Amino acid sequence: PQLEEQGAVTKLVAGQEAESLALVLESLPIEQRLHVWADIPTKDKLDVLEEMRGDAREPLIDAVPAEDWEKLFNDVDAEQLLELADSLPDRLVEQALRVMDKQQRQYFKDASQFKDEHIGHWLNHELLVLPINAKVRDALRLLRRDVPRNTALVFLVNRAGQYSASVNLTDIFRSPDHLPLVDLADEEVVPIKADEACHTAAAHLLSSGFASLPVVDENFNLLGRLDLVTAGDLQSEYYERQVMATAGMDEEEDLFLPVRKSAKSRAVWLGINLITAFLASWFIGLFEGTLQQVVALAVLMPVVASMGGIAGSQTLTLIVRGLALGQVTNANFRALMKKELSVGALNGVIWAVVIGIVSAMWFSDPALGGVIALAILLNIVAAAIAGVAVPVVLDKLKLDPALSGSVILTTVTDIVGFVAFLGIGTLILL
Amino acid sequence: PQLEEQGAVTKLVAGQEAESLALVLESLPIEQRLHVWADIPTKDKLDVLEEMRGDAREPLIDAVPAEDWEKLFNDVDAEQLLELADSLPDRLVEQALRVMDKQQRQYFKDASQFKDEHIGHWLNHELLVLPINAKVRDALRLLRRDVPRNTALVFLVNRAGQYSASVNLTDIFRSPDHLPLVDLADEEVVPIKADEACHTAAAHLLSSGFASLPVVDENFNLLGRLDLVTAGDLQSEYYERQVMATAGMDEEEDLFLPVRKSAKSRAVWLGINLITAFLASWFIGLFEGTLQQVVALAVLMPVVASMGGIAGSQTLTLIVRGLALGQVTNANFRALMKKELSVGALNGVIWAVVIGIVSAMWFSDPALGGVIALAILLNIVAAAIAGVAVPVVLDKLKLDPALSGSVILTTVTDIVGFVAFLGIGTLILL
Repeated sequence: PQLEEQGAVTKLVAGQEAESLALVLESLPIEQRLHVWADIPTKDKLDVLEEMRGDAREPLIDAVPAEDWEKLFNDVDAEQLLELADSLPDRLVEQALRVMDKQQRQYFKDASQFKDEHIGHWLNHELLVLPINAKVRDALRLLRRDVPRNTALVFLVNRAGQYSASVNLTDIFRSPDHLPLVDLADEEVVPIKADEACHTAAAHLLSSGFASLPVVDENFNLLGRLDLVTAGDLQSEYYERQVMATAGMDEEEDLFLPVRKSAKSRAVWLGINLITAFLASWFIGLFEGTLQQVVALAVLMPVVASMGGIAGSQTLTLIVRGLALGQVTNANFRALMKKELSVGALNGVIWAVVIGIVSAMWFSDPALGGVIALAILLNIVAAAIAGVAVPVVLDKLKLDPALSGSVILTTVTDIVGFVAFLGIGTLILL
Repeated sequence: PQLEEQGAVTKLVAGQEAESLALVLESLPIEQRLHVWADIPTKDKLDVLEEMRGDAREPLIDAVPAEDWEKLFNDVDAEQLLELADSLPDRLVEQALRVMDKQQRQYFKDASQFKDEHIGHWLNHELLVLPINAKVRDALRLLRRDVPRNTALVFLVNRAGQYSASVNLTDIFRSPDHLPLVDLADEEVVPIKADEACHTAAAHLLSSGFASLPVVDENFNLLGRLDLVTAGDLQSEYYERQVMATAGMDEEEDLFLPVRKSAKSRAVWLGINLITAFLASWFIGLFEGTLQQVVALAVLMPVVASMGGIAGSQTLTLIVRGLALGQVTNANFRALMKKELSVGALNGVIWAVVIGIVSAMWFSDPALGGVIALAILLNIVAAAIAGVAVPVVLDKLKLDPALSGSVILTTVTDIVGFVAFLGIGTLILL
């Protein structure tokens, strides 16, 4: 039945596009994945690899026999090679570059000058370009040949290759032959700078409503265009990275990454967490004497720590989003801190009362109720301060608050929570 | 200086588009926000409101004097009213409907038949539509009038209004007058179903490379089109919702939501968390006697709980992403469980040894080291099982695993961790 199932999978995917095929391959355990991979026609293999996540494509790349690469690289262009370069061994990148035509090789070289977090790395080079003094008839001649897919603009450049204006195809088709194209320039087209961050550039294109926008370097030379498909991919990747980062993972992580690699990739995050956990334990250890005498404190410790952690992560999440949108700045930092402190104080008082009463009744000890109430209030207020301050400071240090924010925040709320609870307990209950 | 600053803000924003203006307004504390809002020309106010998040626009809506709404609704169309309907009091929605033209009112009614999580709710109704038997010359006549922004396709419908094909504008301009448009039909255009989930439909459009795609109901009637700007917005919203959900928050939450509302909106999540925290405490309470005799157990409790929580959240995050991409299914559930169990076992053994040795040395007690090592191993393995099972079960129950997954997972790892640690401790150390 195992083999029959594989037959079904292979049949199922035969008619699909590279993107869906990539999703299916990623969802298969490695052994089955290799079976389906073997059935994909050689000419389609590179397109499928291009759509897959980094970790997921590696076993497939390893499975391609050395002599097949020539066939796989038959049609390879600069954009594909840029996407695959990190997953391919150097000698294969060089082999691909050798079989590419000169123009594509140049595009690859140009794009490689930009880091992969800059939009200049991810350009589409299929452009309609005309000199600045061209007329409608020149454009019509160009358009009679071949129009690249999803192209709605003709770009005008000066003699030095600098971008000067964009014209809509629909305007060209509706205008008289002799009209200079510059007269039709669409003033709403704002070129994107090649060193802009991918996510910002993608958001810019998506909200512009244009199907693609010109991309220029710092001297206004036209380098290529950013198209929608790329922008959509870059945006999904950005958000996926944020979600995965909250668990200390990489968006390239494969569902079926081999056990050893997977364990290794997660170990770092577990290790960092372990250090913070031992730190919290060390603080608890300072109060061993108290714990021995009032064991109820040990029982209630998780309540104090977890309420602080949750309250802090709510503030943190709000501020991280605000930072990503450019909405948290020096100008409103104080106002934000004041508001979050007020929210923390209000929720702190409410939950302090609730938890204080429950604890006092549970252990028939009103003093214990008072101790935990005070600790909860202090910890929720501390969580609000840390929830605003930690991501803002990380951002100023150019560190990703989505990645390291939560681990630092939890350390703060754990330690403040335990020290407040056990410290106040020592003062009042002994 | 406060007033001067406000002047500067107002000047700064004067030339900006509605979207950037919305971002700036959201970043201002309510008082300043109302000042800037007052300076925005009445004719632009509705466009700005449309771009803002739900919670953030409410104080501005409240600040508009009753007699101004007539001016604000001067140009209102169905799409704007659909976006704003949830934030506006019913009487204002009715007022807007009264001043709308008949056609727009019909669009609003049609769209309201679909829930806001379905793409049918968010359509663009500016279409180029021609009958199925039209020729190129008919299309050219239509195009000579006005082409809606970012439109690259003409849709062909039969007499009953059912969608039958799409033709590219560039193909029309390059073809002879007498050619039937159907001959130019672009086979790659696949219409979107109106009851498709917003996120799926948006992803579909973005990966298609088209600037917009036709949307049809179950009888293939053409209802409108999905355009890029909407698709980009829907996708950002989807991801934002996921990120905010991990902290039990709403993507509409305003940075400067009034303190009371904000505290209230977060209280539910804190309350749920409190119940799980008390549950964990109750389990710890079962071992009061043990804790009193071996206080080191109390000191080390956070280490056991937090290692389980982190390991589990890594698995959970991977599986939640897989579910969102449709990559986690009944077919690979067992293979995934096996892989995550193996990763858990491997990391479990490694960290059990590390933590066991550190703890044994810290408390000069080899037996304690053995107890915590065993508890860590058990908890990391349990975390792997829960990390796979919890989101899959939630998904089957049609609950959002991104929202409730982490709270359930943490409850499991806390309880398993404490019971294993204190239980084994009771057996071995007493």
